[in-house]
Amino acid sequence: MSLIVQKYGGSSVANVERIKNVAKRVVEAKRKGHQLVVVVSALGDTTDELIALAEGVTKAPSEREMDMLLSTGEQISVALLAMAIQELGVKAVSLTGYQVGIMTDRFHTRARIIDISTDRVKRALREGNVVIVAGFQGKTTADEITTLGRGGSDLTAVALAKVLRAKACEIYTDVDGIFTADPRIVPDARKLDTISYEEILELASLGAQVMQSRSIEVGKKFDIPIYVRSSFNTKPGTLITKETKKMEEVLVSGVALNENEAKVTIFGVPDRPGVAAKIFKILADNNINVDMIIQNKTETARTDISFTVMKKDLSRALTVVQRAARAVGSKEVDIDRHIAKVSIVGVGMRSHSGVASAVFGALAKAKVNIEMISTSEIKISCVVDEKNGRKAVRAIHKAFKLGRKKAR
Amino acid sequence: MSLIVQKYGGSSVANVERIKNVAKRVVEAKRKGHQLVVVVSALGDTTDELIALAEGVTKAPSEREMDMLLSTGEQISVALLAMAIQELGVKAVSLTGYQVGIMTDRFHTRARIIDISTDRVKRALREGNVVIVAGFQGKTTADEITTLGRGGSDLTAVALAKVLRAKACEIYTDVDGIFTADPRIVPDARKLDTISYEEILELASLGAQVMQSRSIEVGKKFDIPIYVRSSFNTKPGTLITKETKKMEEVLVSGVALNENEAKVTIFGVPDRPGVAAKIFKILADNNINVDMIIQNKTETARTDISFTVMKKDLSRALTVVQRAARAVGSKEVDIDRHIAKVSIVGVGMRSHSGVASAVFGALAKAKVNIEMISTSEIKISCVVDEKNGRKAVRAIHKAFKLGRKKAR
Repeated sequence: MSLIVQKYGGSSVANVERIKNVAKRVVEAKRKGHQLVVVVSALGDTTDELIALAEGVTKAPSEREMDMLLSTGEQISVALLAMAIQELGVKAVSLTGYQVGIMTDRFHTRARIIDISTDRVKRALREGNVVIVAGFQGKTTADEITTLGRGGSDLTAVALAKVLRAKACEIYTDVDGIFTADPRIVPDARKLDTISYEEILELASLGAQVMQSRSIEVGKKFDIPIYVRSSFNTKPGTLITKETKKMEEVLVSGVALNENEAKVTIFGVPDRPGVAAKIFKILADNNINVDMIIQNKTETARTDISFTVMKKDLSRALTVVQRAARAVGSKEVDIDRHIAKVSIVGVGMRSHSGVASAVFGALAKAKVNIEMISTSEIKISCVVDEKNGRKAVRAIHKAFKLGRKKAR
Repeated sequence: MSLIVQKYGGSSVANVERIKNVAKRVVEAKRKGHQLVVVVSALGDTTDELIALAEGVTKAPSEREMDMLLSTGEQISVALLAMAIQELGVKAVSLTGYQVGIMTDRFHTRARIIDISTDRVKRALREGNVVIVAGFQGKTTADEITTLGRGGSDLTAVALAKVLRAKACEIYTDVDGIFTADPRIVPDARKLDTISYEEILELASLGAQVMQSRSIEVGKKFDIPIYVRSSFNTKPGTLITKETKKMEEVLVSGVALNENEAKVTIFGVPDRPGVAAKIFKILADNNINVDMIIQNKTETARTDISFTVMKKDLSRALTVVQRAARAVGSKEVDIDRHIAKVSIVGVGMRSHSGVASAVFGALAKAKVNIEMISTSEIKISCVVDEKNGRKAVRAIHKAFKLGRKKAR
């Protein structure tokens, strides 16, 4: 009897009807003869409602108490799903992260999983139960409740799949799978049947909000097949798996757009060793994540440095950067909020040349000016003017023939 | 430094403003130099909302999953209260029943406390924290989450006061204390400064819904002073304590009205030993609580038996009673939903005679007919027609001069 871990996100359990629908799917899988562990997120808006309550009480809630508060969201949904499954005549039992024994470090609101005890889950499975586990939460060795931060429920699911040696991990969401581009931007975007861990990792970090990187990394490390599927239909979804020969035949798997970054430029930075290091150390010390970095030498003794940060970090970054710029004797600091980052990803790039020139060609043909370029083994990113972002995505998507066949 | 356990009910923490108000009160007590353990119920309507969700999913939710679900209510309120206290610059930490180590038996939705670990609470107190404990919940030795049933949060508070050897247990609610009668029925009802455990136990079981009997019993057993006070003002409230000489000087402490019972009469029961036992055993076996019982002999060989049950149990009781009546060869069964039970309570009755006749006299003067009478050492109960219930309360309250002095 094979074990499958399923995970249902908040939109899949947003209300009583949807919870019943999830229960039906779980029961179907159970009746096919699988053992099932089901990880659930909080109901739809529960987490937002809880955060609003906390914000009503204090502007700066302690992270420990936030975890205490937010972990109730998943506890509610697991209890309700267990009831809904029992209503269909199938044995089910819900467990908190605490009860499972999902041990984490002590960093509240962003804890990392250290270890997962399997005793209680295995015992419940042996007794014939569907085991419903609260996602997103764990506990410390001091019996404190922790939460895992963004994408925490996916992480719970993949980590459980690992420790339980599950055959697969199925992530149910409100989209049909992973697409060659965001269908809202590129109407003929095509659903991918398979994608490699490496590609999805690049896509996730590039702004295609499918799954958080942390859970993919665990899947990759332990070679756990992850299926991303819709909880609202029975389409097969997308399988995230290790790289295969066949994948390499495909040049590009997807095009991603990220409109959440802003560009910062420091003009006239003294061109001597250690200056860039100094600037980016100050940013790192202030917990500001920097994405792309480029440096253009303009004068003999001075250079310009540009980099991108998340828009939400921009005002904080600016304060820090201005201080850093003064410290190294730079001329001035400029910011540009109106940028978009367009990226293509594909393991095929490793063994094919000419991808970059095809991208630049497509953008030139679409009359889109490129402001910054950054490349890795399986990725090319271009920063363009914000107003050209969507056009750039469509141009590249078309140039690499990623769309659905016309004959449908 | 003396330790005080405070308990705030759902109406005291119904919204963000009220939570902040409770935080202020807690901080005031803390600044007076007390160590504080604060037990909190779920926010206002949370429990009802959770029950509605469960009922949306299934008509018959498993009790284990109900506990999983409902225990989140208190977890939310303790986290929010801890945040609100921290916002006022005072150290606070919230703990679930699970984290405290409130060990219970395995009877979900109505668990009994077996033991409470004090290590974690004491450690948190030593570290200077106000310790906020989720009421109403505990865990079994198998790490299952349980809830304590009605009045569970009061029970948590009194039991914690016991194991922590607290100086007092303060129950904050939405009324000013315990009154000689329900002020909605008797406008000049007077708040009592003190009342004995015995009296409040009788009042609780007689329908004056102040506190559940279970927590009073614990208070009585371990001689823990319990203050019932309003969380909305600073009036002193009522102290529940052991009987004193002074209390015995007062004939009657309070008059209670219970409109939740119905009367069942079995006519023509064969008058031989063991018949009544048989009938009430069948009721007990079916988990139907019987309150007052009277038996009137009408013929030589037969008798009539009347008793009262909760209205909510009436239809179930009727089915059972009709079966029982047939089994013993009775004539017929009659029910009366339209009754009210009026009771007076006072430890002074023990040493004073003439209380019963004063009650009957007051009712006669008010032209209220008495249908059933039941007495104990410190209580007299009369069943009257439902439409006379309130009038009867007022008549007795006046006869015993329980109201406020006119000169105010």
